[in-house]
Formats: sequence, structure tokens, C-alpha cells
Amino acid sequence: MPASAAPLTDALIAFAGTRGAPLPESARQVMRLSLLDWCAVAIAGRDEPVARIVRDRVEDEGGKAEATVIGQNGKAPARAAALANGTASHALDYDDTHFAHIGHPSVAIIPAALAMAEKTGATGGEFLDAALVGVEISCRIGTWLGRQHYQHGFHQTATSGTFGATMAAARLAGLDPTAMAHAMGIASTRASGLKSQFGTMGKPYHAGMAAANGVEAALLAKAGFISRPDGLECEQGFGETHAGENGDPAPILAGLGEVFWFETVQHKFHACCHGLHAAIEALNALRFEHGFVVEDIASVRVTTHPRWLKVCNIASPATGLEAKFSYRLTAAMALAGCDTGALTTYTDAVCADLALIALRDRVQVETDPALPDTEARVEVRLRSGAVLAARHDLDQPIAPDIRLAKIRAKAASLLGPEKAEALWGVIADIDHQPLTSLTRLVAT
Amino acid sequence: MPASAAPLTDALIAFAGTRGAPLPESARQVMRLSLLDWCAVAIAGRDEPVARIVRDRVEDEGGKAEATVIGQNGKAPARAAALANGTASHALDYDDTHFAHIGHPSVAIIPAALAMAEKTGATGGEFLDAALVGVEISCRIGTWLGRQHYQHGFHQTATSGTFGATMAAARLAGLDPTAMAHAMGIASTRASGLKSQFGTMGKPYHAGMAAANGVEAALLAKAGFISRPDGLECEQGFGETHAGENGDPAPILAGLGEVFWFETVQHKFHACCHGLHAAIEALNALRFEHGFVVEDIASVRVTTHPRWLKVCNIASPATGLEAKFSYRLTAAMALAGCDTGALTTYTDAVCADLALIALRDRVQVETDPALPDTEARVEVRLRSGAVLAARHDLDQPIAPDIRLAKIRAKAASLLGPEKAEALWGVIADIDHQPLTSLTRLVAT
Repeated sequence: MPASAAPLTDALIAFAGTRGAPLPESARQVMRLSLLDWCAVAIAGRDEPVARIVRDRVEDEGGKAEATVIGQNGKAPARAAALANGTASHALDYDDTHFAHIGHPSVAIIPAALAMAEKTGATGGEFLDAALVGVEISCRIGTWLGRQHYQHGFHQTATSGTFGATMAAARLAGLDPTAMAHAMGIASTRASGLKSQFGTMGKPYHAGMAAANGVEAALLAKAGFISRPDGLECEQGFGETHAGENGDPAPILAGLGEVFWFETVQHKFHACCHGLHAAIEALNALRFEHGFVVEDIASVRVTTHPRWLKVCNIASPATGLEAKFSYRLTAAMALAGCDTGALTTYTDAVCADLALIALRDRVQVETDPALPDTEARVEVRLRSGAVLAARHDLDQPIAPDIRLAKIRAKAASLLGPEKAEALWGVIADIDHQPLTSLTRLVAT
Repeated sequence: MPASAAPLTDALIAFAGTRGAPLPESARQVMRLSLLDWCAVAIAGRDEPVARIVRDRVEDEGGKAEATVIGQNGKAPARAAALANGTASHALDYDDTHFAHIGHPSVAIIPAALAMAEKTGATGGEFLDAALVGVEISCRIGTWLGRQHYQHGFHQTATSGTFGATMAAARLAGLDPTAMAHAMGIASTRASGLKSQFGTMGKPYHAGMAAANGVEAALLAKAGFISRPDGLECEQGFGETHAGENGDPAPILAGLGEVFWFETVQHKFHACCHGLHAAIEALNALRFEHGFVVEDIASVRVTTHPRWLKVCNIASPATGLEAKFSYRLTAAMALAGCDTGALTTYTDAVCADLALIALRDRVQVETDPALPDTEARVEVRLRSGAVLAARHDLDQPIAPDIRLAKIRAKAASLLGPEKAEALWGVIADIDHQPLTSLTRLVAT
């Protein structure tokens, strides 16, 4: 047998198409958590300007009522619904992140899987499995493309996301392996998305692009479209032309189908830049453990990896948006017990609060290049002379029940407890639910 | 006044948006010729498998009846029509080429301009102008990205085509300069297309992608989408991330609005690989001038740039498709008076024709790296001992009336004389025609 011309693609297709053995329950449970998280941020983000603009575009085009569009009465063609829902769910930038993949898996994959599941009449369980297969593939391909791809200027959410969305959609469309390879080829020539769009509506649109690309690629391949089936890996294929690291596929494929890299996905529990989260978690832990109050605090030191200084170190923020990128102010907010998980906490008023400013000005930010960029160290010096220290690494696994509790609390904070619990009621039982139980809740 | 952060984009936007002075008539006439050529290849290509697959996808999605879909009863949303028509018009690979741009301008731009013209109720003249502005911008940006972008693996038809299509659509949508810049920013993160798809349905799909991207970018920007307005040129923008040469904008902008680089666009008059055309033209010229017949020919020598040997030098083709990539056989066909402009000429039977094979085997292909790749030299040695020589450079300007006559003959060969002349009747008078005169003819 000749060696495969596209060993990575072929193995990922075999994984995506397999329907025999059930997928591991631990990975499916993390997918349920991410689905709840995704529903919460998508519904909460549906009225953001970019979400409205893309949804209006989709609504204006019209077409066959195949799939639910979040925030719209009525449905749209699957591709269009994926475009709108991907954009809406990334509008707040409050969705999950995978640090090895360097991207946001759920916002690119879940919209494609959901739209195709509705179009094809899949069950809740089939939808969950397709989404899980898709996010796993985007994590694996994102890691194969690597940091070099990201540093060159590409946004993995959009690029690797297109491949994951394609495989999720292709699985639901029931493509055979040959057609799946052509779908991957279409994805390789359709995938795009630049980091230079960060800070604009382009970033959330990338998630919609990836999801819509995936649906289009799968449906064209199902209809017999012949592309370059090794387009991801071939000479002048996607990896080579897009500054991918394109290393040995063996470590990328290790444990595929048994070990799910997606299980280490990170959920955001604070509605601010991800670079601030480790410090907030460490300060929260100190506050809960030692029970001090703001008046007790003499000074605070936050130590972080130097790369974050260019990202989220606004010393004296003046607006709600700037507050989301300030170590000093969010540290003060956490120590003062503000709800850093609520969108409504980050206001101009909080920046002008004199008590918070006084505390903020006692916070000093330092760097240590030896720290992983997922970790922060904090030190709180009390007026009593006591020095309290803690560290937090976002990469540390969180026990599943604690993670679930935190996501449920986040969903309740974003949507209200009733809606959040209704969503979790359906998602926890998604294997025995018709898809309409879920879509009914996210539509409005 | 500060220097512009995006001098190329800003100048192209100013050019695209200007509606005061009329565009030069010589350039508008070349656009009319390319429009006739585009209609002919699009209608002739509408039943190719890739054209059907993409059209079926568009038809299945449905939606608002805004714009004509070639080969379909009924209309589709403008974006969808652009996708289908772009793909159909590049399906035969018989459309126009611009060698400085290194791409096919009309198949990416005309579908976007036509769909947006229909959506916005533009006149025939406004449509023509928007198409001309779009192809000119794609030629300029394609040249700015340069050969390095192409050699790295990108297909300018898809990439530069997206920018040109965006500007054509934005002009018709009446965007102000700020919104046009945001449309260009959307285009910079949406544009994609790899040369590794050549030889598959991916290549014609690229033209559809570019056209559809352009419509989507223009309509999102019109609705207030904020992107990175300097996304083409900024740090980690499209040019920098996509191996663009990204040189000084001054020569790229030279004469913009007065000199139209698009005027040097090449039309294909032979239904085979473009690398063969110069040799066929030179052989045709010899045959017409000297009036020899096949039996008079002792041997033939074709000299071409070496780069073509990897592209179109199948020595003994066996199928109609292979015939389209054979110097030796197409030289024999030209010398024997076959209609190399008709799609139906390239058959398995022509490859098995014993008289043609005997002549083909007397053709020798040589290379000369000093030749431009648009030029070929031919030498025909007669049995009488006479040696006849000619050369042809596709870059030599053709007199406008000869170019028109050749395109009308090509259209007649593809569509029949009646349809071809009806099309030219409308296009020649497009400034005084409602757009429906044209769309009625291309719809069916």
C-alpha cells in the first residue's frame, strides 16, 4: 500500500467519519459544558453591533428555513445561520479558548454543527458528537499549524476553525471518506482570517466565516465537487502557504479518538482580557481564604509573563472597554469583590470610582519571563505587615464539577438564572432530547 | 496632514468612488469586449460539472430574487448569484487573462458588478463603469502583490479578484470612502485561494469566491461593519501575510484613472492552455501568408520559454483534455486548419487522427529562456527546402477592430452566431440599454 499523500488529513477524516464506538464520556461532558458556555455568550452577544449587522445581512438574503439564527424570528439556510451564529457567539470575546490550538474552538465549530444538525435532522447526541469531533480536529490542526502560523498573522479561530467546522458539517452530512477529503480541499482554499483585524468587528466575523465555510465545503463536496483532497498538506497547500509549522503528523495524531485535547479548553469566567484571568483567580483565592477587606490592604504586586504588558496593562483606564485591559484596575475590582464575570461591571463609572482608584494605585505590575503566559503570581501586603501570596495557572485542570458550577454561574450572570438553568436542563440531557429543545431556547 | 496609513488603498478608493468625469472611452470599449467574451464563456460553461454543483447549491439555499444566475430560471441573492456566475464563467478556463496581474480579471469582477448592478437598479453604463473600476483595481493590486505572491502559491484571480470585486460592488452600493475602506478591510481578511487547486474544480470556484466575497464585503460595510480599513497594507495585513512584494505604491498608482492597465488584458482565442497560444498564432500567420498545405511540411520547430514545458508539453496526448496541453498536437492542428477556438475540437478522436499524428511527430519543441513567456518563435521547413519563420508575442497590442472581430467570432463559435450577435448588439449599446436587456440574454 503506498504511503498516504496526506497522512494528517486521512487520519482526521477516519476519526471524523467513525460512528461505531461511542466517543468518551469525559470528552462529551466537556463538550456539554462548552455548549452551555457557547449558548450563554451567543445569546448575550446577539445584540452587539457586529452580530446585528451580520444577522441583518443573512435575514435580508433570506432563503430556505433550515437552521436557527440566534436572535431572529425564523430560520435561514444552514450556511447563513452558521455565519450569523458564529459571529454573534464571538462578539463579546467571552467564549472558550484552547491555548495549544491558539484559538477559540467552540465559536467556529458549534454554529456549523448546529446548523447542519438542524438541516439534516440529526439527534441531540449526533449533534454533540459532531461538534466534539470538529473542535478536536480544529485543536489538532491548529497545533500542527502552530505558533509560527499565529505569529505570522493568521487567526487560528478562522483558519483551523474552518477545517474543524468542515469536518463537523461533513460528519452530519454523512460524507464518505473521499467526499470528506474533497471537503477538506475546499476548506484549504477557502480558509482565511488575519489577526490584524483584532480590535474590530473582523475578529468575531472570523468565527462566522469559519462556520459558514465549513457548511459550504461539506455541502459542495456532498454534491460531487472535486477539489485537491490533500490541500491542507500538499506542496503549496494551506499549511505551506500559510506559514504553518507543518511538523511530523505523528505527535499531532497521538491518541486521536481516545485522548481529547479539547478537554483542556479554557472557559472565561471574567468578562475581560484573558491575560488578566490568572491574576484575578489568584487574588480571589487569597480574598476567600484570608477574608481581608479593602481597608486592610497596603499594597499589591501582580507578576505576569512580559508578553501581556502590550496586551492588557492600561495603568489608569478611563472607559469600560479600557477597564477590560487593565491589570491594576481589575486587581482592585477583584479585591473589592466586584463581579468580574458580569458584562455590566466594566463601565466608565467603575473607572472613576475613587475607592477603586485608590486601591488601583497601590497595585504594581511586574514581569517574569520564566512564568508560563497562563500563570500569574500575586502578593498582597496588609497594613498589619502580613504578606499573603498566591499563584494561579489557567492550565491547571479544574475538577469537572467545579467547572460546571462556574459555567452555570456565568450563564446565570449573563442570561438570568431561569434561562441558564433551562439551557443546562436540555444540554445535560442532550442525548435524549430532540434538537428543537435546544434551538427553541437559543432562538430568542 | 499626516501621511496616509494606507496610501494604496486610499488612492484606489478615491478612484473607485469618483463619478464626476467619465471613464476613458478606449478603456470602456475594452471592458465591452471583455463583457462579450465573459458572457460567451459563462454561457458556454454553464453546464460544466462545477458550474452545476455551485449553481445547485445556490438554488437549494434560495433567497431574495435579486440577481440573475446564468443557466437558472429565477434569481438569487446578489452574493449567491456572484458565486454561481463567477464559477460558471471560469469553468472552461477560456476567459480573459492579465499577465501583469497574473490572473483572470473578468471572471472575478463582472459577476460581482452584474449582481450588485441588478440589486441596486443601476443602468447599463453604471454597471460597465463599476466593472471597469473593479478589473483595473484587481490588476493594480495583483501587480502590487506581484509574482512573489503567485509563486508562493496564491491564485491572484481569487485574492486580487476579491479586492477588485469589493470595489466594484462598493461603487454600485454607493459607499462613502470610509465605508469603502472598511469593505477593503473585510476583503483583506476574507480573500483566499490557492494555486494548488489548479486542475480541480477549485480553480473556477475561486472566481466565484472572489465575486461573492466582494458583494458580502460591500454590503456588510454599507451596514456599518467596522474592520481594519488599512487591512491590505498594514503590519500583518493581507500583503504582508500573503507573501506580497508590497513595493512602493507610486508606480502601482501611476496614471490611475487615466491609463487603464486593463486595456492590455488578453483574450483567449484558442480553447487550450494559454501557454500554447503564441505558437498557434505564429503558425496561423505563416499558414495564411504562405498558403502551404500539410503535405508540404517537412518539419516544424516551436521555441518557447522553458517555464511552459512543465505546463503544456504533453508530447503524445491521448485525450481531448491532454490535447489542450500539447505543443506538438496543437501545432499540427493549427497547421491542418482545425478550429482551435472551438471547444468541440479537442477530442480523443483528434488525438487518434493518423494524419495529425504524422504531422505532430514532425514537430520539435525547444526552449529559449531569453524569450518572454508570452512569446513563441516557430519555424516551418517545407519539403521544397524553404524555411518559413514567424514569432508572436501575446503582449503585442491588437488593433481594437481586429480584437472585436476575433471575440465576436469566438462568441459565435461558442454560442452560435445569432446569440452572439444579440449579445454584442446589447453590449455595444450598453450605455443606453436597461440592464435587463443583458440579463435576459445571459439567463438562459
